[in-house]
Amino acid sequence: VRSRLIVRCADRPGIVAAIANHLFWRGANIISSAQHSGEQFFLRMEFEHEGDASEGFDQVARQFDMDVRFARADVPKRMAILVSREEHCLLDLLWRARTGELFADVGLVLSNHEDARRDAEAFDVPFVHVANGRDIREHAENEMLEHLRGFDVVVLARYMQILTGGFLERLGVPVINIHHSFLPAFAGAGPYERAHARGVKIIGATAHYVTEELDEGPIIEQDVGRVTHADEVEALKRTGRDIERAVLARAVRWHLEDRIVVDGTRTVVF
Amino acid sequence: VRSRLIVRCADRPGIVAAIANHLFWRGANIISSAQHSGEQFFLRMEFEHEGDASEGFDQVARQFDMDVRFARADVPKRMAILVSREEHCLLDLLWRARTGELFADVGLVLSNHEDARRDAEAFDVPFVHVANGRDIREHAENEMLEHLRGFDVVVLARYMQILTGGFLERLGVPVINIHHSFLPAFAGAGPYERAHARGVKIIGATAHYVTEELDEGPIIEQDVGRVTHADEVEALKRTGRDIERAVLARAVRWHLEDRIVVDGTRTVVF
Amino acid sequence: VRSRLIVRCADRPGIVAAIANHLFWRGANIISSAQHSGEQFFLRMEFEHEGDASEGFDQVARQFDMDVRFARADVPKRMAILVSREEHCLLDLLWRARTGELFADVGLVLSNHEDARRDAEAFDVPFVHVANGRDIREHAENEMLEHLRGFDVVVLARYMQILTGGFLERLGVPVINIHHSFLPAFAGAGPYERAHARGVKIIGATAHYVTEELDEGPIIEQDVGRVTHADEVEALKRTGRDIERAVLARAVRWHLEDRIVVDGTRTVVF
Amino acid sequence: VRSRLIVRCADRPGIVAAIANHLFWRGANIISSAQHSGEQFFLRMEFEHEGDASEGFDQVARQFDMDVRFARADVPKRMAILVSREEHCLLDLLWRARTGELFADVGLVLSNHEDARRDAEAFDVPFVHVANGRDIREHAENEMLEHLRGFDVVVLARYMQILTGGFLERLGVPVINIHHSFLPAFAGAGPYERAHARGVKIIGATAHYVTEELDEGPIIEQDVGRVTHADEVEALKRTGRDIERAVLARAVRWHLEDRIVVDGTRTVVF
Repeated sequence: VRSRLIVRCADRPGIVAAIANHLFWRGANIISSAQHSGEQFFLRMEFEHEGDASEGFDQVARQFDMDVRFARADVPKRMAILVSREEHCLLDLLWRARTGELFADVGLVLSNHEDARRDAEAFDVPFVHVANGRDIREHAENEMLEHLRGFDVVVLARYMQILTGGFLERLGVPVINIHHSFLPAFAGAGPYERAHARGVKIIGATAHYVTEELDEGPIIEQDVGRVTHADEVEALKRTGRDIERAVLARAVRWHLEDRIVVDGTRTVVF
Repeated sequence: VRSRLIVRCADRPGIVAAIANHLFWRGANIISSAQHSGEQFFLRMEFEHEGDASEGFDQVARQFDMDVRFARADVPKRMAILVSREEHCLLDLLWRARTGELFADVGLVLSNHEDARRDAEAFDVPFVHVANGRDIREHAENEMLEHLRGFDVVVLARYMQILTGGFLERLGVPVINIHHSFLPAFAGAGPYERAHARGVKIIGATAHYVTEELDEGPIIEQDVGRVTHADEVEALKRTGRDIERAVLARAVRWHLEDRIVVDGTRTVVF
Repeated sequence: VRSRLIVRCADRPGIVAAIANHLFWRGANIISSAQHSGEQFFLRMEFEHEGDASEGFDQVARQFDMDVRFARADVPKRMAILVSREEHCLLDLLWRARTGELFADVGLVLSNHEDARRDAEAFDVPFVHVANGRDIREHAENEMLEHLRGFDVVVLARYMQILTGGFLERLGVPVINIHHSFLPAFAGAGPYERAHARGVKIIGATAHYVTEELDEGPIIEQDVGRVTHADEVEALKRTGRDIERAVLARAVRWHLEDRIVVDGTRTVVF
Repeated sequence: VRSRLIVRCADRPGIVAAIANHLFWRGANIISSAQHSGEQFFLRMEFEHEGDASEGFDQVARQFDMDVRFARADVPKRMAILVSREEHCLLDLLWRARTGELFADVGLVLSNHEDARRDAEAFDVPFVHVANGRDIREHAENEMLEHLRGFDVVVLARYMQILTGGFLERLGVPVINIHHSFLPAFAGAGPYERAHARGVKIIGATAHYVTEELDEGPIIEQDVGRVTHADEVEALKRTGRDIERAVLARAVRWHLEDRIVVDGTRTVVF
């Protein structure tokens, strides 16, 4: 069995020793270990073991007042993908999941349009259409929650509808979004149009966890690409699509590998 | 003699032919040529010739209602550098000018601190100290204008004082600034501190022409560097210094080579 | 009608004027123009016109002893894709062609394996299987030539068989290959394995025109990605796949846009 | 007191626990910890402590048959820089050492030319000239060894003379070189000329530990920059200089921070 342990607590001497001793005592072999000491102490360990590695760890956790999470590394997370009309991120995630690059069980593609149905089905992933929009938000979100029951993570692969705070709370699992700008620049609508008007020489994309406040959630990953004066808005969008799908794929992979710990408005990415 | 011709006008058929015919008739050999057709037509040509290549061009210019600029490619521009306490950009520009990578005659380093005196003098460049600050702005700017008379371009190499619109107008030559963020993100003061607080994964720097509105001038060049959760503000500043000096050096070089045409809030960089 | 003109000749005064005059006289409006003067003179112009822009150009061509090529910008090139088992490049090209990012009429996917059939057909592109290998090379190439008749360009999207010089000659159209290393490093087989053994910190991919000598053809485009000591060969391959498909897509797009001129062992990319 | 512990041994359960227990028992607080498990186990820990943290560690080391190195993090390493005529890397290292970005005591600049004397002295670093060349190698190396006595690390900042295996052995401390190509491409002389002839689209630089075999030592860091068909050899060199100094500076910093462990022909960089 391969598992991961994610720990967060106030920093003080003895934490690593206590954790390593516990794992050694449980017969585990540590495969990789990373830690970060900022205002708090963060640690991620991956290890191989038999039986239940968490057994008895509550005593260590209590001693150091830890937030603790054990996760199985050999069980794929159940993932749902939401998409509107732009399919580049969706197609990329489906392809990476098929090759095994993303260790996930993609069980649903949900869209407020019909465009993505064919691609989803070509990859043997169930597709459902749920209309959404300002005037039918409540109804749409109720229906979506039905479909999203039982998933471990939801990915917004260019899903262009707002998700309310109530929806996020009832959903209860992490939601990862790809925003098509280099946040905090050009938050909100029309980032490529605004980037063109400002005359920037580099555009970007940002993957972040979704919170109630639009485009303000903790950033997981960003990347950029170079543009020139000769690039009209359409060229920015074309360059941007490649950045978006690469950034989202990395963010999703790191999430699936339990590499991300949210630290207020920031993330620790091991 | 090697010269450059920069043209800007409304786009219509025949412009390139008219310009190429003029240069051919003047005995010039075109070395490089680049054009951009957006809402307007922009062109930059570099050519070798004898005598005055601009003679008789006013007729072509009138026919197409052109903005025209002829510039000598074999005469260095006279450049002054303003700096406060951080010397990385200054040192980099001085070194590049010495190696000939920047084709400029650096005639002055002006600072509101004494720190840079030694480096300037090690490169045999005159140094003057002019105190500046909110309360002595007018006096300072008057004194600076005295020193800056006769320069073709002024570079702000991390000069941390505001230049007023009146100063810029009386100066009358282009001023290039390096801002230590990826504009429009983190305009204004403390960009690294704010980038750290927001938890961005990439930081950047922006070289732009200075206008009356702070950090709003036309962007010449930008670049970025990757940071992680482990990088505190000091680490961002260290990474940022390398980006700043590289971006500023490129912007200055392109300006010295007459590659930049301002187009409203944007720049064309040939 | 939108067309492109690609010219190559010895450099001397008057070339640009002669070309621009011809196009002006034929009523063409130049949209973009780029030139390069190295040991030879290279020029690419894109223009809008009515009728036949090339009419009468033979006189100009003769005067300057030019290699000349006129190409239609509004007619898609007919493209065939060869692939073996790795589908990431194929899928990427098919998706980009579908979105219109690649302006091509993809008329065939040909493989020495059956794996790619399903993906090709999901994009409504005909698929043929032609077995290939050292012992059946001649037979295989004959059969492939039957299928490839009438195409303007052939793309090797991770096609892992050698194409003989005789095949290339009889094919008679450009062939673009993606090699999974940063050439000239790690030419030949097993580049990721060798990159890992050497302990490089950056891996890359190279798109080039295929010539009789393996991995020695003129380079069109290259890109790289960072790796660390922690990346085993499998991780290099995963990172590499993203680089490969991005590099190949750019090379193919530039070819389709008539941006590439071969200059001996080098390419000019406008 | 702040120290670092670098460990290398065969991988097996209990290593991390044993080390963490030792440090906890010695009253140390672990600041950062990184490990890598490939064919062998590698670990780097940085910690704060009082007294001698290594006391009693030999027992742990024996138990796991470890290679162990304790290093002081708060004592600067003594560094000598060798340079020939190109000063960009030298100047960059001197500036970074002066700002404190490189935590080193730069005690000597040694050159086979006089060019760098002025820059060294402007930074208050002693300069010595030692002629070198094929015919006087033995004499030169003897003289150099006299000057290099007592240094912890030697940096070749574009030093264009060969160092013999005998010299390296007698020197007995790590030597870091910057090679002006993306190794293994263009090992040996004239890399920019050969890169231009091959028509590559990206050039690079490589920092590595020096071994007896030229350009074959373990790679520490590499980086690259984009070039085009328009870049002649001189332009490649200009772009290359920026890459060289950035790559070398990172390699030197990592070495000074005890982040690098040589693993045969490869390096682990924590």
